[in-house]
Amino acid sequence: MRALTKTTPAPGFELSMVRVPELGPSDVLIRVQKAGVCGTDQHIYAWDPWAQRRIHPPLIVGHEFMGTVAAVGAAVRGIAVGERVSAEGHISCGVCRQCRTGEAHICTNVKIIGVDTDGAFAGYIVMPAGNVWRLDPAIPDEFAAIFDPLGNAVHTVMAAGVSTKSVVITGVGSIGLMAIPVARAAGAASVFAIDVNPQKLALAERVGADAVFDARDPNLLDEIARRTGGDGADVLLEMSGSGSAIDAGLHMLRNGGRAALLGIPPDDVAINLAERIIFKGLTVLGINGRKMFETWYQTEALVRSGRVDLRPIITHELPLDAFADAFELMRTGAAAKIVLDVTPAP
Amino acid sequence: MRALTKTTPAPGFELSMVRVPELGPSDVLIRVQKAGVCGTDQHIYAWDPWAQRRIHPPLIVGHEFMGTVAAVGAAVRGIAVGERVSAEGHISCGVCRQCRTGEAHICTNVKIIGVDTDGAFAGYIVMPAGNVWRLDPAIPDEFAAIFDPLGNAVHTVMAAGVSTKSVVITGVGSIGLMAIPVARAAGAASVFAIDVNPQKLALAERVGADAVFDARDPNLLDEIARRTGGDGADVLLEMSGSGSAIDAGLHMLRNGGRAALLGIPPDDVAINLAERIIFKGLTVLGINGRKMFETWYQTEALVRSGRVDLRPIITHELPLDAFADAFELMRTGAAAKIVLDVTPAP
Amino acid sequence: MRALTKTTPAPGFELSMVRVPELGPSDVLIRVQKAGVCGTDQHIYAWDPWAQRRIHPPLIVGHEFMGTVAAVGAAVRGIAVGERVSAEGHISCGVCRQCRTGEAHICTNVKIIGVDTDGAFAGYIVMPAGNVWRLDPAIPDEFAAIFDPLGNAVHTVMAAGVSTKSVVITGVGSIGLMAIPVARAAGAASVFAIDVNPQKLALAERVGADAVFDARDPNLLDEIARRTGGDGADVLLEMSGSGSAIDAGLHMLRNGGRAALLGIPPDDVAINLAERIIFKGLTVLGINGRKMFETWYQTEALVRSGRVDLRPIITHELPLDAFADAFELMRTGAAAKIVLDVTPAP
Amino acid sequence: MRALTKTTPAPGFELSMVRVPELGPSDVLIRVQKAGVCGTDQHIYAWDPWAQRRIHPPLIVGHEFMGTVAAVGAAVRGIAVGERVSAEGHISCGVCRQCRTGEAHICTNVKIIGVDTDGAFAGYIVMPAGNVWRLDPAIPDEFAAIFDPLGNAVHTVMAAGVSTKSVVITGVGSIGLMAIPVARAAGAASVFAIDVNPQKLALAERVGADAVFDARDPNLLDEIARRTGGDGADVLLEMSGSGSAIDAGLHMLRNGGRAALLGIPPDDVAINLAERIIFKGLTVLGINGRKMFETWYQTEALVRSGRVDLRPIITHELPLDAFADAFELMRTGAAAKIVLDVTPAP
Repeated sequence: MRALTKTTPAPGFELSMVRVPELGPSDVLIRVQKAGVCGTDQHIYAWDPWAQRRIHPPLIVGHEFMGTVAAVGAAVRGIAVGERVSAEGHISCGVCRQCRTGEAHICTNVKIIGVDTDGAFAGYIVMPAGNVWRLDPAIPDEFAAIFDPLGNAVHTVMAAGVSTKSVVITGVGSIGLMAIPVARAAGAASVFAIDVNPQKLALAERVGADAVFDARDPNLLDEIARRTGGDGADVLLEMSGSGSAIDAGLHMLRNGGRAALLGIPPDDVAINLAERIIFKGLTVLGINGRKMFETWYQTEALVRSGRVDLRPIITHELPLDAFADAFELMRTGAAAKIVLDVTPAP
Repeated sequence: MRALTKTTPAPGFELSMVRVPELGPSDVLIRVQKAGVCGTDQHIYAWDPWAQRRIHPPLIVGHEFMGTVAAVGAAVRGIAVGERVSAEGHISCGVCRQCRTGEAHICTNVKIIGVDTDGAFAGYIVMPAGNVWRLDPAIPDEFAAIFDPLGNAVHTVMAAGVSTKSVVITGVGSIGLMAIPVARAAGAASVFAIDVNPQKLALAERVGADAVFDARDPNLLDEIARRTGGDGADVLLEMSGSGSAIDAGLHMLRNGGRAALLGIPPDDVAINLAERIIFKGLTVLGINGRKMFETWYQTEALVRSGRVDLRPIITHELPLDAFADAFELMRTGAAAKIVLDVTPAP
Repeated sequence: MRALTKTTPAPGFELSMVRVPELGPSDVLIRVQKAGVCGTDQHIYAWDPWAQRRIHPPLIVGHEFMGTVAAVGAAVRGIAVGERVSAEGHISCGVCRQCRTGEAHICTNVKIIGVDTDGAFAGYIVMPAGNVWRLDPAIPDEFAAIFDPLGNAVHTVMAAGVSTKSVVITGVGSIGLMAIPVARAAGAASVFAIDVNPQKLALAERVGADAVFDARDPNLLDEIARRTGGDGADVLLEMSGSGSAIDAGLHMLRNGGRAALLGIPPDDVAINLAERIIFKGLTVLGINGRKMFETWYQTEALVRSGRVDLRPIITHELPLDAFADAFELMRTGAAAKIVLDVTPAP
Repeated sequence: MRALTKTTPAPGFELSMVRVPELGPSDVLIRVQKAGVCGTDQHIYAWDPWAQRRIHPPLIVGHEFMGTVAAVGAAVRGIAVGERVSAEGHISCGVCRQCRTGEAHICTNVKIIGVDTDGAFAGYIVMPAGNVWRLDPAIPDEFAAIFDPLGNAVHTVMAAGVSTKSVVITGVGSIGLMAIPVARAAGAASVFAIDVNPQKLALAERVGADAVFDARDPNLLDEIARRTGGDGADVLLEMSGSGSAIDAGLHMLRNGGRAALLGIPPDDVAINLAERIIFKGLTVLGINGRKMFETWYQTEALVRSGRVDLRPIITHELPLDAFADAFELMRTGAAAKIVLDVTPAP
């Protein structure tokens, strides 16, 4: 099969032919059809310091995908050959305390496909049956291919709780953008998006933000206060990983507000805990992955309701062999979300 | 001033001239402009057994209203003459445990205007300053007049928690009808309405129900199961007070679902607790009034967002002196919500 | 191996020799050492109407136990031969919505050992590896043998939330009795026990109830009010399944209180929903089984802390072949909890 | 009356005679009997940079106290002359969003007695009636005098949720010490205390810590892991305000753990948000003051239960005129909690 592979500890990927992976008794073999490109893939492609520490070539990359079941292991129940599926890319251990108490998304022994084990930019992928998600026919292929990052957005929104609330989103990369229609569909009364990229902010407005702001706007804090009855925002969804955005986002929250942190800061962040968190009585939540599988049920419900339209966010669909173009579009910021068509041309 | 009054322990009301009530140091005098007619008013008008037990004439009736501040007591801060206001109709004692712990909506010594003390179908009403709600200019008068029952709907929806959920509403009287756009705006993925009145069901569909059902439909349970992936609904909002609706509604819920009970059954209800609640691991919530003032903030946020349109539910607007017509429209079920214009003709 | 078996659809059990059950690849074979006798076993023994509907002989009974791992299937990780274990007796399907969202305790396809499949009053039992709980060395055998009903008590207490609260327990059979030290250890400020059996009430006092009451005491409601500052109790743990106890228990709660229902009423219960639940703004929780495995972690933490002493509640320890005596002690109410020693005499 | 006053912008206090404050219609005049000395008082005494920014002399200091009602304003209900009372020292505005939604403890316009307005180290103090807490006769005077800091401990413990949990407390000054018996009484399964002061750690052990650790112990992280089954602690109560303690405390938490931050760091704290909070899926809570009046009800319930004994923590009781000795004992760390007797010698 074809597979996009990190073959050596250096920048770039190689598209080559490899053997189809073997199927264990509790596994499902999936023929990949569409797969999303994530910022993580870009880090691995560029071979940045994080990738150099974390990735051990050779490795097939890619972790957001959908496809069709090609084979199921002997012990698998409830999944049939030919079914349309996506899959949770975090493979949890099943025996740690978190796994045994409904918190497998923070499993202490998690392995991530495309990072720790072979991934989805390939003709086929093997997944544990417990990770497979059968797709509702109403979910379009290209949305299903990005249920993983969409699930990050849904998990963040649902952990924060947005029903009737005013919501600030700091950072509208692809997940931040998805969080806008998700927050609205989940009941937010107003959504304000903040970023430094005017194209992303324009897209944020197009997918439903009530107002968008340049993070460097000196009146930003006053504007948020003005639009929230002077109180400050109820909820912060932090999706930038930027220290200054985190500080500003916490500052914008009203006393008693809630912040959900999804963006990963590359370095330590200095925080005035007294003023930003303690005196204000804030709740700050660290968000990792997607709840298995509560987030998946929520994501399906939102997409099926027709109120979360991802089409404007999927700016590019490209064939797998155009992967170099895809990573260049990512690098320049010209793309929001790119979906690769992995099916070989007939 | 004019006032619609229960003067004697018998059916009917009398529209007569009475003195404007006196203002205490912590009170606000409000010139009433618009006021909603509630099922409770109808019980008092008809002088049914509940009313005979609870009401002590003479009493000015009416508890849903909006108007303009005409005077404020000496100790009142933050409310000015001329401001447009509505008010919470439950006057809580301020000293019981519930009042001192943020649960004044279940105060053990509550008094309700138009039931226990003089109400709002009058030229003026005096309210404790703490009950007054200053209206955002974006809220239309006729919506503001019914913030009390709308708040019942919002409290029920928010207590149940509907974000991304499938929601069944049993009973679409005026509050059940309001709960439909409220649930959708608050994030419900789907809303199913059940009643026996085809006109109300038609209205339910018009205000946003995904599907409506006659409560006597023999396939009802299967239909709800089919539309919820076979699981049953996530949430029940019970707004009928009917024992059979409560049983059916609990039956439709999935294991682990949540039911919020607002409708008041006139008699004991026999429940198979084992099958309906215990084995299923349900959560059942009793709902009373509106949270002071969390529900009011939520209600304002929902209405301001523009996603809760009450216009189709306000089927009639009538002058105060047409009150007999209003109660006849209520009695026959021809009206959903009636708003009375209390301002005297110029 | 020896096994206590329901061989025919008639009262009584038979102690006979049967073959050791076969081990699947994901299973664990456990040599049973001690096993608790439950009210459910008594229903099956007596062959009451519930048992006649639910049980299909032949069936090995018993579902509360501890023992030693005798063999593990090929696919099992993390459990070794020789380890001391107990096990969750509810075998969940793993594929329903509840199972996939951390709510396996309300799995829609659950099978219960000793009820739906062969049970633990036997030399050996086979359990799915995912149901096995490895025992901390600090947990005594006889406590470990009854982690299943103790887990019911813990689940009920933790779902209700008792920290700093006043707690009423209606019904002090063996689970109600266990709930007393559990509630105290979990942080209850006061625990009041109610029953009609004076011996059970004496035992309730011995295991830590602050006060005990005969359910027929005409001053009961006033007494609870007096001991809760006039407010009523914060929490009800309903463990009797009696309709009158449920009504009385709900009546005793303060506005805003929480009730957790574990006892199974054999018939419908008529409830004044308006007065008992709706106006009071109560939260009522149906409780089923034990959370997998959050309840097990909590149970272990409580027992290891040394603050939950079950010794006074285990009134009898008997050898397996004295089973007829055990069921007679249960029938007469002379026993609280009976633990059977299943190990054959040397 | 006598009053301990900050008269000039310089170190020290002056004990002088001043006029008894005037009583408004909604106020209560309290004759102070006992009052606790807090770290905040020490900052004001020492006139450190925080005090120089915040305090505007002349000011009567002290904010933890109990006494007897000497007079009540005309509009006050439910409080009588002669009653034994304590009072919430945060005077909330009553009109901001937080005050109107049951979150007065994070009022945006709060004033603190002894900091923003005249305080309790005086013969009399005037308090708004809504701040007064009537004392149960079972609460000893010296405990009642420190309900304010005890309430900080209770609020922190209850916000974190400790029932059946393993709890780490970083910093065992007086509030950290109080948090130990509070956490145990509220249901913690184990409590580990960390500090750098061996005397405080000895006291921590005496009041119920399961184990105590020097913060500089290089095996600290391993020790906590070992005592929590390898998982890490469930809950962190941060009461030191030290950046390194915050980092270490977050590090000790298991994935999915909860941290409640009460200690006030004087400077920004650099945090590795990715490793410490985000990947672990932590919940971090800022804690301010005491919930009005939920925390007070909880505090009363805990003290009345007899399971929170503060006597070992109140290391010194001194007459008001020995205030200089008190502040010296505080400065050297020789005292845990000091209670001043404010009643003049007969």
